[in-house]
Amino acid sequence: MSTGASTKDFASRLDQTADDTEAVLTKVLADGVLPDEIARPKRLMDAMRYSSLGGGKRLRPFLVVESAAVFGVHREQALLVGAALECIHCYSLIHDDLPAMDNSDLRRGRPTLHKATDDATAILAGDALLTLAFDIVTRDEIHEDATVRLLLTRALARCAGLGGMVGGQMLDLAGEGRFGDTGPVDVARVQQMKTGALLRYGVIAGALLGQATQKEYKALDDYGRALGEAFQIADDLLDVEGDAAALGKPAGADAALNKTTFVTQLGVEGARKRVADLIATADASLSIFGAKGDVLRAAARFVAERKN
Amino acid sequence: MSTGASTKDFASRLDQTADDTEAVLTKVLADGVLPDEIARPKRLMDAMRYSSLGGGKRLRPFLVVESAAVFGVHREQALLVGAALECIHCYSLIHDDLPAMDNSDLRRGRPTLHKATDDATAILAGDALLTLAFDIVTRDEIHEDATVRLLLTRALARCAGLGGMVGGQMLDLAGEGRFGDTGPVDVARVQQMKTGALLRYGVIAGALLGQATQKEYKALDDYGRALGEAFQIADDLLDVEGDAAALGKPAGADAALNKTTFVTQLGVEGARKRVADLIATADASLSIFGAKGDVLRAAARFVAERKN
Repeated sequence: MSTGASTKDFASRLDQTADDTEAVLTKVLADGVLPDEIARPKRLMDAMRYSSLGGGKRLRPFLVVESAAVFGVHREQALLVGAALECIHCYSLIHDDLPAMDNSDLRRGRPTLHKATDDATAILAGDALLTLAFDIVTRDEIHEDATVRLLLTRALARCAGLGGMVGGQMLDLAGEGRFGDTGPVDVARVQQMKTGALLRYGVIAGALLGQATQKEYKALDDYGRALGEAFQIADDLLDVEGDAAALGKPAGADAALNKTTFVTQLGVEGARKRVADLIATADASLSIFGAKGDVLRAAARFVAERKN
Repeated sequence: MSTGASTKDFASRLDQTADDTEAVLTKVLADGVLPDEIARPKRLMDAMRYSSLGGGKRLRPFLVVESAAVFGVHREQALLVGAALECIHCYSLIHDDLPAMDNSDLRRGRPTLHKATDDATAILAGDALLTLAFDIVTRDEIHEDATVRLLLTRALARCAGLGGMVGGQMLDLAGEGRFGDTGPVDVARVQQMKTGALLRYGVIAGALLGQATQKEYKALDDYGRALGEAFQIADDLLDVEGDAAALGKPAGADAALNKTTFVTQLGVEGARKRVADLIATADASLSIFGAKGDVLRAAARFVAERKN
């Protein structure tokens, strides 16, 4: 098994993609992007920028860029798809933070959007970012073959929608007993949809951009699923063990909600063991790519060991 | 100038497309649509069905079907695009009705979704319908040419997003003085985005499906813009003159909000005159299609003279 890229190399690659994603999103959300004859709702664009610029590890765009790189896809193409995915991620955080949902005041160490503005602006900014993602992912620069862009678009809708992220958030709220008792919660199932689906999209988007063979696609899909679950378990562990300053939000939120998580189901040690198994699965899935899979291997480890 | 289809013919065509749209949406939102391995968030699908099935004139799908029919496009293809558009329309109503936005309790004579369930479910059902629209509009059955489906997808994102419907809703809320004084409101501009953009999409979607020439596309686009404005002015007139039973919601809501509308700007007579001018513009725009444009001509008249 490869030892993967060095930690320092990995960190600088991650930072570079975060910077590049910031640049793409800044351009996409610049005041001038709307034709002059359309009134620009400045309040809306300011809100979209507030929640999508200036922060975040940009892990999902990183996964697009690095899985696309396995196939030699131009970085600029992958960055645009990554920006679309990040729009979906940012919208989901805005809506999840609303008083009607998780009622969170802090995100990345700053007031959440509805605290900084108001609920109506936050709802609309989320809607606009979600919609913008589908504008971006259809753009000609992403791939010369319209069929590839169409597959990228459809997969994004499926990973983000009722069978993916939105459906997972609904199940997650139900698991908190919001709508009455719902019986035992299948945490793995809920999180595969709520958190896993967008991480998985990052990886399969790279495969679609690279016009992967069926076997290559399956390998990346397996990797993406393992990484997605490892990410969420690490998140649950951080909620128990992390500190608020590093997280940029209060720790212990799950316990306060009496929420079923991987940690309440498996215990801390069991959860750590499960993460280790998932990293091994992720590594093994990438074997057909040899050294070309090293950065993705390092990404799985990074996700599992991160401190925020 | 053609006299257009008879009123009876028109009404039965509209009803038929409403029925067919209902059938398509029912199928798209059936329990079985998600693969068995994915947990089905029943609460979410029930909410999506509550707000998208069993009602509405389905005017937007009708515009898709009838503008596509000008080019001889198969009805089934247009109905799918119409269903995608209707998902967007229904999501926008769900979010607009929320307490944080228009705070409406009634819609089509029934409790709004957040009254029938709760705010979290309504936010997520809206998000899921918006996302589903982009799943539907990419489907293979819509057109054999992927480029056509891609153009349909991109136009939908642009008409629905920050430069279209969502942006218009933001400007509309600002016009109510929600975020402090914002100066004079350009009602035509706001409504062109908030209401007009989706109606216009219905018409240009037909042109895209029919692979219209540039001249034909422009003609339909002009028609769609005129129809969109006529629709909104008729809406403002109904708010002043309509009765709650026919509307399925309280009349006089605009006046209660002290809102700037076409009627407050033009007066009742001025608004009626403007509608008549717009119908003439819509008629004239369709001249290149001859008798093939008759149903669309009747649609413009229907929109202007409707009672709910």
